[in-house]
Amino acid sequence: MLPYNIDHVAIAVHDLDAALADLQEQYGAEPLSRETVESQGVEEAMIAIGGSYLQILQPLTAESPVGRFLSKRGEGLHHVAFAVPDIDAALEHLASTGTRLIDEEPRIGGGGHRIAFVHPSAFGGTLVELVEGAT
Amino acid sequence: MLPYNIDHVAIAVHDLDAALADLQEQYGAEPLSRETVESQGVEEAMIAIGGSYLQILQPLTAESPVGRFLSKRGEGLHHVAFAVPDIDAALEHLASTGTRLIDEEPRIGGGGHRIAFVHPSAFGGTLVELVEGAT
Repeated sequence: MLPYNIDHVAIAVHDLDAALADLQEQYGAEPLSRETVESQGVEEAMIAIGGSYLQILQPLTAESPVGRFLSKRGEGLHHVAFAVPDIDAALEHLASTGTRLIDEEPRIGGGGHRIAFVHPSAFGGTLVELVEGAT
Repeated sequence: MLPYNIDHVAIAVHDLDAALADLQEQYGAEPLSRETVESQGVEEAMIAIGGSYLQILQPLTAESPVGRFLSKRGEGLHHVAFAVPDIDAALEHLASTGTRLIDEEPRIGGGGHRIAFVHPSAFGGTLVELVEGAT
């Protein structure tokens, strides 16, 4: 059940263009992809760093989950995503240990990957995303 | 200047033992190392996931930077660390772009690595650590 990689680290920002300009200036990093994920209420960009990604999230509306995060906490680290080989098995294992899940079944996230979120109360106050076979 | 890897993602917790037990139960993950880093006021554990690490931080005192973070924001994601081949060159580049640094010169962090922190105001409200040649 061990995740085989940190798929991505997500950062919530008010202004995706400004954040990408900062990343370019400071680290020479260019986004590999950029897309609107309506189901999650975000526009997101992925920046490859080694075998993982930074994911920069700008909310589409103030009432979306990322919009509410920004209102409450301001810009900053939003979640960490673990790559798992079999997301159904991972969710089954987590449920068997009584881990509180946000998504009991996988759904489709950015890039068309099967994903699920684990509630931040389960471990270290940290919102964890599982991504199936993505990296 | 592009970082060649995400060296680690750090999570601040009140109780390192409890967090490691949660990680073991939920993801079968065991710490590779555990050490007290007096200079940063933390006890920390590193868990390998793919080519990166989760770093779990418990403050040694409430007045330490991580202790103050917990008081203000509660448990959660604390910083992201980029691996760079030459930290002196990276800091010189960042200074040349006017990026606000916490550490203008490298210091020694966990595992004996040369590290430096970049102020969260520089990019996405996110505390960024640079780690030289660590992964």
